[in-house]
Amino acid sequence: MKSHTKHLTFKVSERMDFINITSQVEEELRHSGIKEGLCLVNAMHITASVFINDDEPGLHRDYKRWLEELAPFDPSPDRYHHNRTGEDNADAHHKRQIMGREVVVAVTRGKLDFGPWEQIFYGEFDGRRQKRVMVKIIGE
Amino acid sequence: MKSHTKHLTFKVSERMDFINITSQVEEELRHSGIKEGLCLVNAMHITASVFINDDEPGLHRDYKRWLEELAPFDPSPDRYHHNRTGEDNADAHHKRQIMGREVVVAVTRGKLDFGPWEQIFYGEFDGRRQKRVMVKIIGE
Amino acid sequence: MKSHTKHLTFKVSERMDFINITSQVEEELRHSGIKEGLCLVNAMHITASVFINDDEPGLHRDYKRWLEELAPFDPSPDRYHHNRTGEDNADAHHKRQIMGREVVVAVTRGKLDFGPWEQIFYGEFDGRRQKRVMVKIIGE
Repeated sequence: MKSHTKHLTFKVSERMDFINITSQVEEELRHSGIKEGLCLVNAMHITASVFINDDEPGLHRDYKRWLEELAPFDPSPDRYHHNRTGEDNADAHHKRQIMGREVVVAVTRGKLDFGPWEQIFYGEFDGRRQKRVMVKIIGE
Repeated sequence: MKSHTKHLTFKVSERMDFINITSQVEEELRHSGIKEGLCLVNAMHITASVFINDDEPGLHRDYKRWLEELAPFDPSPDRYHHNRTGEDNADAHHKRQIMGREVVVAVTRGKLDFGPWEQIFYGEFDGRRQKRVMVKIIGE
Repeated sequence: MKSHTKHLTFKVSERMDFINITSQVEEELRHSGIKEGLCLVNAMHITASVFINDDEPGLHRDYKRWLEELAPFDPSPDRYHHNRTGEDNADAHHKRQIMGREVVVAVTRGKLDFGPWEQIFYGEFDGRRQKRVMVKIIGE
């Protein structure tokens, strides 16, 4: 069994945004030399997500509005107890649960074995600082 | 390390419905000959889910109503920007994020290592056309 | 390829609560002797979750209130069809979908390869009885 490990680094200039990281994951897969196996991609921070969906700006706008409705940004200590710790990012911890921490992708014949529209995104909910994404590939 | 790859195909006659695919995944596990490892099952389309929960029709009815409340079907371009592209399925992209893209199941002594009520479902949110589900099993 | 399998058992005294199980998973990783691979941790029951987030009591309080808003406990047969089966835990099946069933964690140099604040939680939504969590580690 082979394995390959890479921490990607991102600094998103907005508080909330989605970055297509598919080509960076594909590059790590090429470096790994792995032909058959599994590829884990996860946010290493708990106010961010990795998810698979469509690379369509209108949909991303919809997601942002929807997440804001489900878990509004509110730095006050009234809505979120978490913000009594001096943090202002309780909403981001909630948004991340909706969008998920990680994806696991099949590797077949040296490629990410994707359906027609699957793309991997880094979802940032508390940006403007450096954050990391794990890529771990195991197989043969 | 062994690996086994299979794309299952489904055409769901309703727009939204849940199909128990546990026995099809178990069949692939038997074909694989793998005794210890991990089994990834994921939707290959971004308006569908694979999830694990109860095979109880009342619960599935509850899920459908709840998902419709959280992300209502609305083909107009007003609620969802995504539907300005000519699509009418923005709601399905949202529902899929709640229910998830994939499950990873432990394989132990040649079986899916499940708790008492765990069953694998394909969740369709934009049906009436052919879609695929990935089964990838790695191990020994 | 090596593999290691362990079912952890929990009995949570509240109906809904979150238990930090990171050290128990780390102990299984030490027992496995695996240095590079993947570690799956999943709830074996369908009214419970395993998720990764912050070990901060205020945030956990926020999650509980939020989940109660998204899917309120209501044992009556009116709100949830599932509760017409004699069960009272339909809300728990919904809460588990928001918080997720499982996490997959990279294993690097014999450690869970975590970001600075990642901690693994068992999320119980229908407690006061014995339940199990799967830890499955594969690698070398």
